[in-house]
Amino acid sequence: MHEKYPLVSNPRDPRFHSLLNLKGHGGRSRTGTYLIEGIRHLARAVERNCSILQIIVDTSVLSNVFGQKLVRRLRQTGVPAIRLTPELYRELTMANEPQGVCAELRQQTLAIGDLKPGRDSLWLAVESVDLPGNLGTILRTAEAAGAAGIFLLERSSDPWDPVCVRASMGSLFGLRLVPCTMAEFVSWARKHRVTIVGSSPRGLLNFKALRCRWPAVLLVGSERQGLSPQLMEHSHLTVRIPMHGGCDSVNAAVARGVLLFEMASQREQRGWG
Amino acid sequence: MHEKYPLVSNPRDPRFHSLLNLKGHGGRSRTGTYLIEGIRHLARAVERNCSILQIIVDTSVLSNVFGQKLVRRLRQTGVPAIRLTPELYRELTMANEPQGVCAELRQQTLAIGDLKPGRDSLWLAVESVDLPGNLGTILRTAEAAGAAGIFLLERSSDPWDPVCVRASMGSLFGLRLVPCTMAEFVSWARKHRVTIVGSSPRGLLNFKALRCRWPAVLLVGSERQGLSPQLMEHSHLTVRIPMHGGCDSVNAAVARGVLLFEMASQREQRGWG
Repeated sequence: MHEKYPLVSNPRDPRFHSLLNLKGHGGRSRTGTYLIEGIRHLARAVERNCSILQIIVDTSVLSNVFGQKLVRRLRQTGVPAIRLTPELYRELTMANEPQGVCAELRQQTLAIGDLKPGRDSLWLAVESVDLPGNLGTILRTAEAAGAAGIFLLERSSDPWDPVCVRASMGSLFGLRLVPCTMAEFVSWARKHRVTIVGSSPRGLLNFKALRCRWPAVLLVGSERQGLSPQLMEHSHLTVRIPMHGGCDSVNAAVARGVLLFEMASQREQRGWG
Repeated sequence: MHEKYPLVSNPRDPRFHSLLNLKGHGGRSRTGTYLIEGIRHLARAVERNCSILQIIVDTSVLSNVFGQKLVRRLRQTGVPAIRLTPELYRELTMANEPQGVCAELRQQTLAIGDLKPGRDSLWLAVESVDLPGNLGTILRTAEAAGAAGIFLLERSSDPWDPVCVRASMGSLFGLRLVPCTMAEFVSWARKHRVTIVGSSPRGLLNFKALRCRWPAVLLVGSERQGLSPQLMEHSHLTVRIPMHGGCDSVNAAVARGVLLFEMASQREQRGWG
């Protein structure tokens, strides 16, 4: 099955080379595309109407019937497909348990100038993230908490890094990503009267005591350094998670989740208060 | 400095061998001890009055003055110390950035029969955890949220695994660890009228709507499988975190953090309600 797709077996084949280039930040920036691997990811990308440029399969691995159907359906809508030999496929994906199907997707972002916040919307702004896997976890948490979108304030955080894509578990496809500078972000928030909530172990408010005007954006810094002093200054409120015992912090992903779900729930309770 | 401590340079030296054995579960079980690495960890272990059996240093790396003082102080209280060559030290710790000081600590646990819950205390019970690093993150989160202790319902979750120890960031030393069987746990909760709160994506209550009698214990399952049906049945209440977007779950560490901090804050607000 799928044997009709052209086979690429030579590691020097230019088609393979352009795919390999997508593993690096530079290659992805040049094409404005990125790679995803696995049936579940592909299914979610289809669900979310992502722009799929091509399918890459390893027919020796793709035994799942649902996965095979998905590829056939995409082929019928005109998406080109190629086959790779198992060796080339493994080199491309580096997945621990490859599922035999990859896709090249167009990077989708929103320009901050085009963005209007919904009346009660919750946003997340990420100043910088040390590890791509952590950015993926942030994306997943943000979608689960009902965030409308994510501002990426530093170009160095690449949401299309394969490690981030994998950790986001498909949430990358459902979120509005807004790359911008700090100045653009601050002036957008001012223009649209969006409350900026900074988070830090030195935040002034216990996060449970936070009551903010909506729309609002939660601002998180890097795992090691936290928020920069500039962004702390631009925050209308700063919150902290009070620590017990000898702890001075919790895992950054845990902290962001705790804050995001608290804000999400405060937003929902607004209607009742 | 520290040159007076006996040097072990032969990889076949029995002192080195017994240390190496502590890297495996079997070796740790036999001795009832475990290893920690790094100045921060050692300082917290001292703070928490952990039982420190010996210090192991690599003097070529231990340049930090505070670390050196800490070792000297422990020596003065009678804790034996040995030096390892850099090669042996690296083999022992496998740390990315070794700080030149290790310690062998006694595993400290509480027998469930001796345990009485404080009136308003919050507990955590872990059924099983797939990855030791995740158990470490749970310990850290639990201490930060003010949990009184942790029930370890499966012997397979070894809190003294080096990866768990590192991820716990020292919280391992401040928490009461209670290894027990499921039956012991359930009968302890019944005897002391402790509310068992199960967590699952299929939990009946939105976690924000939880109002429980105290003391209470939050019960979490493994990252992949969640709670077993038996423990779901023994729960007085089951909670879920509502998901938005296309998400069916969040990262397990994030979910546990969100639930723990919510319960911790409900407990604190009780006084005002």
